[in-house]
Amino acid sequence: MTTIKRVAIQGGGGSNHEIAAKAFFNSEDIEMVPCQTFEELFETLRKDNSIYGIMAIENTLVGSILQNYTLLKDSGLVVIGEYKLRIKHQLLALPGQKIEDIKEVHSHPMALAQCGDFLKQYPHIKKIASDDTALSAKWIQDEKLEGMAAIAPELAAKKYSLEILARDIETNKRNFTRFLIISDKAKTEVEDLLISNKVNKASLVFALPHSEGSLSKVLSILAFYNINLTKIQSLPVVGQEWEYLFYIDLVFEDYNRYLQSLDAIRPLTKGLKNLGEYHVGKRSYDTVSNDNKSLEEQKTF
Amino acid sequence: MTTIKRVAIQGGGGSNHEIAAKAFFNSEDIEMVPCQTFEELFETLRKDNSIYGIMAIENTLVGSILQNYTLLKDSGLVVIGEYKLRIKHQLLALPGQKIEDIKEVHSHPMALAQCGDFLKQYPHIKKIASDDTALSAKWIQDEKLEGMAAIAPELAAKKYSLEILARDIETNKRNFTRFLIISDKAKTEVEDLLISNKVNKASLVFALPHSEGSLSKVLSILAFYNINLTKIQSLPVVGQEWEYLFYIDLVFEDYNRYLQSLDAIRPLTKGLKNLGEYHVGKRSYDTVSNDNKSLEEQKTF
Repeated sequence: MTTIKRVAIQGGGGSNHEIAAKAFFNSEDIEMVPCQTFEELFETLRKDNSIYGIMAIENTLVGSILQNYTLLKDSGLVVIGEYKLRIKHQLLALPGQKIEDIKEVHSHPMALAQCGDFLKQYPHIKKIASDDTALSAKWIQDEKLEGMAAIAPELAAKKYSLEILARDIETNKRNFTRFLIISDKAKTEVEDLLISNKVNKASLVFALPHSEGSLSKVLSILAFYNINLTKIQSLPVVGQEWEYLFYIDLVFEDYNRYLQSLDAIRPLTKGLKNLGEYHVGKRSYDTVSNDNKSLEEQKTF
Repeated sequence: MTTIKRVAIQGGGGSNHEIAAKAFFNSEDIEMVPCQTFEELFETLRKDNSIYGIMAIENTLVGSILQNYTLLKDSGLVVIGEYKLRIKHQLLALPGQKIEDIKEVHSHPMALAQCGDFLKQYPHIKKIASDDTALSAKWIQDEKLEGMAAIAPELAAKKYSLEILARDIETNKRNFTRFLIISDKAKTEVEDLLISNKVNKASLVFALPHSEGSLSKVLSILAFYNINLTKIQSLPVVGQEWEYLFYIDLVFEDYNRYLQSLDAIRPLTKGLKNLGEYHVGKRSYDTVSNDNKSLEEQKTF
């Protein structure tokens, strides 16, 4: 018997977060727990540790979602997996509406920005920033708003019975978002699903003393231990301008070697924090490539 | 006799770009050349190499402006300076308007997001994404639009004779943007202004072979040459998902030592490109700190 998994997402049903959650858990037996904000999502997970969370962290066009790194670091929750989703944007409206009827388009500012080339063809359409792509679609259906369109995923069109006025309107087709699946630590220790996948990736955050070559030392030690990096990001600390935190993602073959490398770098960092250990994630790659070899490819340095 | 300097900015007069330009050139003898987009700004500089450009590159809250890194890298132009500006947002409207009259607020999506806490108090005000903070202010004055507000700098209020309905409405007061001053290479070689300031900082971009510890090697060599880092950013290459470019900022005391270090790392990188050499920039710090010591402080690692 499969138990239904509950997964907290920011925004409404039909969003890219829901699509990524379904792809990660590879099952329809999941129930979405919608949250207004990412802050509320973390609060939800803290209150009920049977609930998972999913959160966008990085996009191949716009880079890291820095606020989410900060929320994760401060939450005490851990990353238990990742998924990379190809982002496609659809222009949705009530059935029967034509693009000439549309006076306003509502969506998340990032989605509006990513459809810039398409929207430039329709200068009379007002671009209105909302909290969420899918919730904009829901709102148009709930209020039966003519003359309004939303930019949202195809799933939102199905869910809220809207028509797709224009398909795949994103300017750049090579647009992937990486999502992290997060959970309460206690729970991950007993979850079959998660330990069945071999852990071969980890996310860390640390500060460094302001001494010459301090980052170089940490990276050298990781290299001595055959630990590869897939990401490095220096991030200004809010309230201490031009002071930095370093977020790094590591991949490794040997879990013990990885643990030893953490012990080896810890004394050279300030406040080293392990944000989670997980398995390198799959990616959706339908319209970009059908090359199966690249399914789990991840470049390292 | 001082000659008037022309400085291309993205967006309209009265923007943070204009404020930063005036602060960097420390003079009123500059004339703004407004450009619709950053792409147009680079085009303008290429056509007339007597024109400088100024471009936001990094914000202490939201991180790097990745698109601008890409534009800079591909432009063949170079960075000749930097300035760090404390960002403040004002709610502007036609004189006589009250906040209760306002039905829509127009601004750049980033400004809307940075004033989230303030705007939450007025859920009836529609947040409308525009291309530019200052241009939204200008539009309200040009069209004499009642019921409309813009989020823009105080300079825009003066310039377009608007009233400040609410002052300093940004959620986080520790909000700095780092601007780069860019120019055509040929020009910088003859410009007194620039060579009078000792060069002690540089911005580089490179790719790396996918071999274990490749970044660690580059950073180790820089450390051996006593070159400090102030920033590192791995940035996904658009069109080659999970392939990365590295943008690093360096500071140094000895210019020759720095040149030698570039020669030393070049064979270990792919396509090392120097984006510019300049003097560590001043920052505006009025409401955050009056501590003069921190004026040029920049943390290194």
